Amino acid sequence: MEIKVVRKVLDANNTMAAQNRKLFAEKKVFVLNMMSSPGSGKTATLERTLSLLMPEVKTAVIVGDICTSNDADRLAKSGAPVIQINTGDLSGGDCHLAAHIIADAASNLDLGNLDLLIVENVGNLVCPAEFDIGENARTVVLSVTEGEDKPLKYPLMFRVCDTAIVNKIDLLPYLDYDIHAAVSNILQVHPQMPIFQLSAKTGHGFDAWLNWLKRQLLI
Amino acid sequence: MEIKVVRKVLDANNTMAAQNRKLFAEKKVFVLNMMSSPGSGKTATLERTLSLLMPEVKTAVIVGDICTSNDADRLAKSGAPVIQINTGDLSGGDCHLAAHIIADAASNLDLGNLDLLIVENVGNLVCPAEFDIGENARTVVLSVTEGEDKPLKYPLMFRVCDTAIVNKIDLLPYLDYDIHAAVSNILQVHPQMPIFQLSAKTGHGFDAWLNWLKRQLLI
Repeated sequence: MEIKVVRKVLDANNTMAAQNRKLFAEKKVFVLNMMSSPGSGKTATLERTLSLLMPEVKTAVIVGDICTSNDADRLAKSGAPVIQINTGDLSGGDCHLAAHIIADAASNLDLGNLDLLIVENVGNLVCPAEFDIGENARTVVLSVTEGEDKPLKYPLMFRVCDTAIVNKIDLLPYLDYDIHAAVSNILQVHPQMPIFQLSAKTGHGFDAWLNWLKRQLLI
Repeated sequence: MEIKVVRKVLDANNTMAAQNRKLFAEKKVFVLNMMSSPGSGKTATLERTLSLLMPEVKTAVIVGDICTSNDADRLAKSGAPVIQINTGDLSGGDCHLAAHIIADAASNLDLGNLDLLIVENVGNLVCPAEFDIGENARTVVLSVTEGEDKPLKYPLMFRVCDTAIVNKIDLLPYLDYDIHAAVSNILQVHPQMPIFQLSAKTGHGFDAWLNWLKRQLLI
């Protein structure tokens, strides 16, 4: 019975995701779903990404968190429209963003005046990978402090994503971290996935990441 | 309908958790549930914990991962019995350990010959907090690379845990991290929770952590 209901929930989500995707295509908005563990640096990566894209690329952000508006407060400084979603804290809070949540949030954005919509998902390397939100592409952010084996331990996330960011490379001198092993593990799960090694703190590696992102735009 | 089924699943889990708790009490085994984001250093913390406890404290470990036996391989070097659970990768893998999984795993351990059973849960700061597995105490591990605001953003995890470990403090000199803010945020969510600041890499801070752990034992 549980499995049936889970399937029904996922089917309903997929229907809504398809509607989102159609709307975004009509409005020529490219939608990126960013996912990662808590604390991998999604928000810091977005802060720098927005500062380098705006105002040339008209960008908005939808941020999902169980609680707080910390991330939205940080991102709003860029001047981009930012919508914070709190998934609530009644029984722990939803562990992912679903398509109907994105539809609600997007209805508050002037889509006709946007090139790019970035969704910063709830920090969780498991559940968000299972929910299509109507995005055009997915990026997983992995911090070098998380260890090299995460792609092998959480393979679905790395399979469903189109690109991977390996963040916090400024910390490499202070860690016993084999970045070649990390890259090799990502490619083992998802052969030929573009991987961007960067530091949201120093800005190292952002050129390649932004070039990729700009090439995806529908304008 | 979804909510009803979720409640039913949680009720069934609670019944099984109560059975686990009764069995562990009869066998005088103290059971600790360790939870955290992926990559916070649960396994490294356990490696050092086992090396300092064993053989004085007879300890076993149940490790939950979606895929791989990497963590069990690392922990087995301590000589402790280690059982690896893989929650599977069919639709992403289960995002938490449930009580019936722990019952199955524990049936493969010689409980009468154990003082301490540590469960290393699936790396996820959201969902495992919702599932009682029949443990006696819960510890959340937070790495200093994850940012100071995680207790506020994932409050249920910090509310349901009895202690918190702030790990990787050896990296503090290389981070813009305000450990006082992190501690204050933990205490805001869970007043008076014992917090152990430690480095699984250098061993700093392990005395206080091990003293706490030994005081919990039922022997």
